[in-house]
Amino acid sequence: MHKVGIIGLGHVGATLAYTLVTENLVDELVLIDKNEELAVSEEYDLLDAEVFLTGKTKIIIQDYQALKDASIIVFCAGQISALGEDGDRLKELEITSKIVEATAPKIKASGFKGIILTITNPCDVIAAYMQKLTGFEPNKVFGTGTMLDTARMKQAVSRNLAIDSRNVGGYVYGEHGDSQFVAWSTVTVGDRPLLAWDQTLDLEKLDAAVRAGGWKAFAGKGYTSYGIATCAARLVRMMLNDSKTIVSVSAYNQQADVYYGQPVVIGKNGVESLIDCPLTKKENELREKSLQIIKTALAKLPIKK
Amino acid sequence: MHKVGIIGLGHVGATLAYTLVTENLVDELVLIDKNEELAVSEEYDLLDAEVFLTGKTKIIIQDYQALKDASIIVFCAGQISALGEDGDRLKELEITSKIVEATAPKIKASGFKGIILTITNPCDVIAAYMQKLTGFEPNKVFGTGTMLDTARMKQAVSRNLAIDSRNVGGYVYGEHGDSQFVAWSTVTVGDRPLLAWDQTLDLEKLDAAVRAGGWKAFAGKGYTSYGIATCAARLVRMMLNDSKTIVSVSAYNQQADVYYGQPVVIGKNGVESLIDCPLTKKENELREKSLQIIKTALAKLPIKK
Amino acid sequence: MHKVGIIGLGHVGATLAYTLVTENLVDELVLIDKNEELAVSEEYDLLDAEVFLTGKTKIIIQDYQALKDASIIVFCAGQISALGEDGDRLKELEITSKIVEATAPKIKASGFKGIILTITNPCDVIAAYMQKLTGFEPNKVFGTGTMLDTARMKQAVSRNLAIDSRNVGGYVYGEHGDSQFVAWSTVTVGDRPLLAWDQTLDLEKLDAAVRAGGWKAFAGKGYTSYGIATCAARLVRMMLNDSKTIVSVSAYNQQADVYYGQPVVIGKNGVESLIDCPLTKKENELREKSLQIIKTALAKLPIKK
Amino acid sequence: MHKVGIIGLGHVGATLAYTLVTENLVDELVLIDKNEELAVSEEYDLLDAEVFLTGKTKIIIQDYQALKDASIIVFCAGQISALGEDGDRLKELEITSKIVEATAPKIKASGFKGIILTITNPCDVIAAYMQKLTGFEPNKVFGTGTMLDTARMKQAVSRNLAIDSRNVGGYVYGEHGDSQFVAWSTVTVGDRPLLAWDQTLDLEKLDAAVRAGGWKAFAGKGYTSYGIATCAARLVRMMLNDSKTIVSVSAYNQQADVYYGQPVVIGKNGVESLIDCPLTKKENELREKSLQIIKTALAKLPIKK
Repeated sequence: MHKVGIIGLGHVGATLAYTLVTENLVDELVLIDKNEELAVSEEYDLLDAEVFLTGKTKIIIQDYQALKDASIIVFCAGQISALGEDGDRLKELEITSKIVEATAPKIKASGFKGIILTITNPCDVIAAYMQKLTGFEPNKVFGTGTMLDTARMKQAVSRNLAIDSRNVGGYVYGEHGDSQFVAWSTVTVGDRPLLAWDQTLDLEKLDAAVRAGGWKAFAGKGYTSYGIATCAARLVRMMLNDSKTIVSVSAYNQQADVYYGQPVVIGKNGVESLIDCPLTKKENELREKSLQIIKTALAKLPIKK
Repeated sequence: MHKVGIIGLGHVGATLAYTLVTENLVDELVLIDKNEELAVSEEYDLLDAEVFLTGKTKIIIQDYQALKDASIIVFCAGQISALGEDGDRLKELEITSKIVEATAPKIKASGFKGIILTITNPCDVIAAYMQKLTGFEPNKVFGTGTMLDTARMKQAVSRNLAIDSRNVGGYVYGEHGDSQFVAWSTVTVGDRPLLAWDQTLDLEKLDAAVRAGGWKAFAGKGYTSYGIATCAARLVRMMLNDSKTIVSVSAYNQQADVYYGQPVVIGKNGVESLIDCPLTKKENELREKSLQIIKTALAKLPIKK
Repeated sequence: MHKVGIIGLGHVGATLAYTLVTENLVDELVLIDKNEELAVSEEYDLLDAEVFLTGKTKIIIQDYQALKDASIIVFCAGQISALGEDGDRLKELEITSKIVEATAPKIKASGFKGIILTITNPCDVIAAYMQKLTGFEPNKVFGTGTMLDTARMKQAVSRNLAIDSRNVGGYVYGEHGDSQFVAWSTVTVGDRPLLAWDQTLDLEKLDAAVRAGGWKAFAGKGYTSYGIATCAARLVRMMLNDSKTIVSVSAYNQQADVYYGQPVVIGKNGVESLIDCPLTKKENELREKSLQIIKTALAKLPIKK
Repeated sequence: MHKVGIIGLGHVGATLAYTLVTENLVDELVLIDKNEELAVSEEYDLLDAEVFLTGKTKIIIQDYQALKDASIIVFCAGQISALGEDGDRLKELEITSKIVEATAPKIKASGFKGIILTITNPCDVIAAYMQKLTGFEPNKVFGTGTMLDTARMKQAVSRNLAIDSRNVGGYVYGEHGDSQFVAWSTVTVGDRPLLAWDQTLDLEKLDAAVRAGGWKAFAGKGYTSYGIATCAARLVRMMLNDSKTIVSVSAYNQQADVYYGQPVVIGKNGVESLIDCPLTKKENELREKSLQIIKTALAKLPIKK
């Protein structure tokens, strides 16, 4: 049986639930939110959809005990209004860290032994905090991190070259936040290095386009949902299939002793290994800078060593 | 080429766009909203999702001219706050009729020659008004009507009998609103009449459960999106496939001279024929009552004969 | 984890494997055939397909031990040349009963505790024999039976009325073979009794069209594969989803003490209950006749009471 | 409307038809075979499957006129027994060139103006011959070529490194036949050059594994179907979606004046451009050798300059 739980039914959690139901990716879906009436709403709305679908998903709401035999929990509880007016996700931490503190003990108490995928922002800090508070093995707790930012980079390159975004490779590294960076040295188009493709490309401009893409997706509606939900659904599939797929997510890097966005191998055990791409000197500096920002934020949290 | 337009990018329109993109049901999708920044947001959010999907959908925003060669327009512009506090969809008419008045001429001017599917509430009145103001053949303009209510009836019966909702048949008739009614004489489970299945079923209670289901889906989030978007996506597929599928939607009934929810055959020409199920005397009375309510609302609109 | 085994990689088994892989319905698929080279061929051909798909299916070949923790085994080992020249599936029994005798002990020895779905012909007799030789609970062994014949009936009605075959309800009963019959009293179109739809319908002619449909699907290629594989894939999904779906399959009927095609509820426990539709007197006679034919064939097999 | 034709209903054509129907990728599917009874069989078998699917595909058989408004024709008529005992696809040419000669005039006479995708072997020669005999623009006629071989290379690398095959990039070039070669300099894993991944990889061994993979897929059943059908279905989707996707197929290269497997951009106009990857000296030599083999075979055909 495929069983997955979603904690937090804001735009992201609800859209992810809809995506999992539409794809019939799971047989049982546990939905939990602080607002019970909202959970009821989503349950009924999803069941209405089911009448028109081929697969059937059993929906269970508001029951932490039901998580006991789930394979994966997706944690996306948050509060969009907590986002700083300047778009700085780190400002959400004060509120979202409290939600982790309230939730982690309930997850542990349920007897859950699977993988926790965190989406809540600031993504890297929350992934780390969730790992600390649950005490789960680091490979079993990770965040979507720069996987979405990587998709935005692919779209920006795709628009620029008029080539299918699925033909664009490479990774965005670091914080899922302002200090992230495109590791252009890893970017390929049609499996060729980007710069071999077009030496006249203005990487500064492309870099700006990547950032602008994220902002444009956010600005008009005040949140984003479709990209991130599709991304999380793919991660769920990778774990259920044990597909050993390389993607960039927020994972714990022992050497750096911190969670940050980097390419890893995803399988049934969560993050199964890290992929050590050789970065340029400049990219390594950007990485260091980004890791410091994550570490600084993490240092504010009451984590006992 | 499969080309579809969506006018109105609230929760329903945006979720429908996401569903069409996820299923790769269309090759080109035209998105239009009064709020251009919102349309940009949805475009970018959908493109982010596309990186993780197999199919590619070209997204065009804010361009009525692009509707010229589209096969279908889904009209779902509205204003959720216009809904009466008592949940009466007819109270939305004052605002939504104005949107139809503003939109119909633009659709006509675009040269569009396809089918218009309306979702905006009050659904039956708006479908009728859109047909009047565009002057399109009545079969080429119809509303989702009681298709979603029918799904809710199927869910309520399914819960009661612990049988897959896809095994429940039958139709909800009349207004997509308070005066709608389940035509229990049409309801089947496993292709057998519902009452042959269980003669002790309390239809009054089930009727209440159907209404409650719709309300529960709505109450917690203040709108519904997944059921209705999935329903609309299925109607789009039926038309693109020319599948001659029987479903209950809001269609023009010449005999009654009004749009209301009833079973019809959907194909590439929209509503290709009406299905005349023999209803019981009581059901016919409920139907008459519901039609009068739709007619009364329609009479308030400035339609020239 | 979704794990399913397929025993027998002829046209049906291989097409079913392809369907399961394409839909990513299972995470692990165990393929077994008497011809190991064939199993290797299918494994490599399916892996080639996987490169173009979203989901990944682990394929294991020729390993009965791997069935231990599978949820479902689909048994479709047979020999198409064994079919009588007159199309009589009962003539295959001499060969296919031997295959059951060789396979059942291996299934038991593997420690498999799930559901066995049989497709091999003569379907009803083989389902019964497999149940006897494994000693599994009768609800945990069933055959596809008249599910495919029911689909053919729906197609024949659909062609006649120019209505989507998914709108046609009802069941074919009895042997998956010459003595089967359409229970016309159960047939609905758009959830209305078929005869209410069109009283001038010639049921004899339609009956002939159903039989002809099956023959036409078979005649040109000497086997059928797509209908039956899609049917089996749907049954697999129903069990994995525990969807409590009503379909006509070959199930054990305690009252009649025999396996035959009849509507039942499918869920995670296989056949969860039988649906007792009231048939007409003539239909009951046809049923009796068909059951006798199945019983007679079964009596020839060496089953110890 | 999405309309596609398939000419030749052997294992490949029929499996492709099944794949297109299962994915509901087309609204109308035209099936043509020299054996009319076979076409009838496939039609009925596919319609049986449809009852269990969400989308409906109209199936038209044996009607060249119906190709007039199709977007794509997939040509896969052949004769598997024509393959040389040594597996040399060039030996099929004598028979398959005659089929092209018989078919091309019928395609032209139908008024068809779309894209022809050829699968029939020897693939490169047949693609070229079809282009000559129809007189269509070279971008509008192309073969699946080394797209399947590229998938096999990805599988071989994937097995070797225990990484998802969808993370492997790069191309097989040249003849879809014995003289093809993996351009190892183009191969990436996780968007990094293969050799950066593991410098100890034995490319000779991997090369052998790629060849062996194709042979293993073929040997046990005497044909392959699932990989090639999935590959063709993806190409159909790329053209219908106009997705500008880079894949390796058999396309006309003006500079070399011959069709051969190489990376190109696929869109609604077929082959929209060629991708000129810089190959190593050794790879260029292999390419030259392979092109000569294709040219030599082509020279035997009666093509008027």
